[in-house]
Amino acid sequence: MTAHPRFSLNQATVKYASLAEAIVATKSAGIQAIGTWREPVAEIGLDAATRLIADSGLRVSSHCRAGFFTAPDGPERVASLDDNRRAIDETAALAAAGAPGSAAVLVLVSGALPGGDRDLIGARERVRDALGDLEPYAASAGVTLAVEALHPMFAADRCVVSTLGQAIDLAVDAGPSVGVVVDTYHVWWDPDVLAQIARAGSLGRIASYQVCDWLTPLPADVLLGRGIPGDGHIDFGPITRAVEAAGYTGDIECEIFNEDVWARPHDDVAAAVSAAFTSVVAPHL
Amino acid sequence: MTAHPRFSLNQATVKYASLAEAIVATKSAGIQAIGTWREPVAEIGLDAATRLIADSGLRVSSHCRAGFFTAPDGPERVASLDDNRRAIDETAALAAAGAPGSAAVLVLVSGALPGGDRDLIGARERVRDALGDLEPYAASAGVTLAVEALHPMFAADRCVVSTLGQAIDLAVDAGPSVGVVVDTYHVWWDPDVLAQIARAGSLGRIASYQVCDWLTPLPADVLLGRGIPGDGHIDFGPITRAVEAAGYTGDIECEIFNEDVWARPHDDVAAAVSAAFTSVVAPHL
Repeated sequence: MTAHPRFSLNQATVKYASLAEAIVATKSAGIQAIGTWREPVAEIGLDAATRLIADSGLRVSSHCRAGFFTAPDGPERVASLDDNRRAIDETAALAAAGAPGSAAVLVLVSGALPGGDRDLIGARERVRDALGDLEPYAASAGVTLAVEALHPMFAADRCVVSTLGQAIDLAVDAGPSVGVVVDTYHVWWDPDVLAQIARAGSLGRIASYQVCDWLTPLPADVLLGRGIPGDGHIDFGPITRAVEAAGYTGDIECEIFNEDVWARPHDDVAAAVSAAFTSVVAPHL
Repeated sequence: MTAHPRFSLNQATVKYASLAEAIVATKSAGIQAIGTWREPVAEIGLDAATRLIADSGLRVSSHCRAGFFTAPDGPERVASLDDNRRAIDETAALAAAGAPGSAAVLVLVSGALPGGDRDLIGARERVRDALGDLEPYAASAGVTLAVEALHPMFAADRCVVSTLGQAIDLAVDAGPSVGVVVDTYHVWWDPDVLAQIARAGSLGRIASYQVCDWLTPLPADVLLGRGIPGDGHIDFGPITRAVEAAGYTGDIECEIFNEDVWARPHDDVAAAVSAAFTSVVAPHL
């Protein structure tokens, strides 16, 4: 089976697979790159994970995820920043173990409003501060921090960074080793998205492009409403062409949170998302 | 019982009340204004509704709602525009029947992606065209069309206008009788919201300010996740102060879609939202 040469399977799409199983599924579909997640890496330890990656011959397209920067000053914030430094080290190690063309990109989800707090503006400032704190460490590790805007429906309880434009502003403020993720699921609705993709490109800040579709009706747990490209409402043409025109040449991940997808055999899922990518996204590359 | 003099009960907050019952509940809480809905007006006919309003002594703060502009050229689009003209006439009649200070403001929800269509950009252009078509009719009726940006989670299946900035652009393009609704539930997450409120004010385009809160977790039907101000995550201070600073002097509606709220006695709901407004919103006026 062959896959598009720039297609990467984000490991969240086969959430219940171990890293070894995810690698098998990825290769079974002819996919050449994988986006790793921290939990399955931690399950076997970083050394074993880097050996698996090196033996696989796969590229690593990103490592997911760290972040969670909204806690006020105190032990929780210190622990979060420490954890982010560990995640930066992991990212560097996994990318070094991956095949040539691997990207040392750490995806960041910025975090929720702290419990009971309504100061959204203040929470966003704490994200800015944390990125500034971490940037030199990432730079010295050769890692790019990739700020991911999450859909605005997650602004209260998951991620206070809600638009691509806001993510770009944060990246620019933090320094050259901070970029952004363009994830179709999170940004497709934005009237400004094509202009912001162009802006991110002109600033050299597109660190990752992820594709998945928006399904309706939203499921009871809105975190799990992501679909295989082509199954939902998103027009992948304009966004993909904009990312291309902005100069992004890296791997493109498919990252799907969806219980129905997760319940399927891993090889089937890898083949299905690869085929969907070939049919819905690749024509615009 | 007294209520803040600028507080208005949007009839959707007591969804299962007839217009007569909604008026009784509004007055029982000492509220001086009501935002009407088309369905309960249609239930008794416009003549009976205007008599009820005139006899009530209440101001009418807005009439909800028309719109649904995304159908392509054809009978559905023609029917939608005709229906909008009827809604404009209703709005003028209800505002004329209301107490001095009533606002002839028709709230517009722009509509979903037409079934199976993924062309979000095209759907948005059809909204622009429809507003341009309707503006002269609204102007001659003395009615302001109020474009409401709905939260981006509704972009596929309810409203392709997703940000306040986009709504302002549409209003400006359509002409002087088109303004925007600022609804905290829909715009609170927007990193650009305070700047866009200021912009809307400087252009004289704020036609309505509506308050309700964002609750988490979102309910299974995300349409029904709106809360009484103070019960959720929204900081009403910055947005309310921005609307004030932008020069908006009209009534402020509380519009809540929530089955738990709808299940309560109408008088209790009117009193509860009025008290919440006094405590959470009014201090910022």
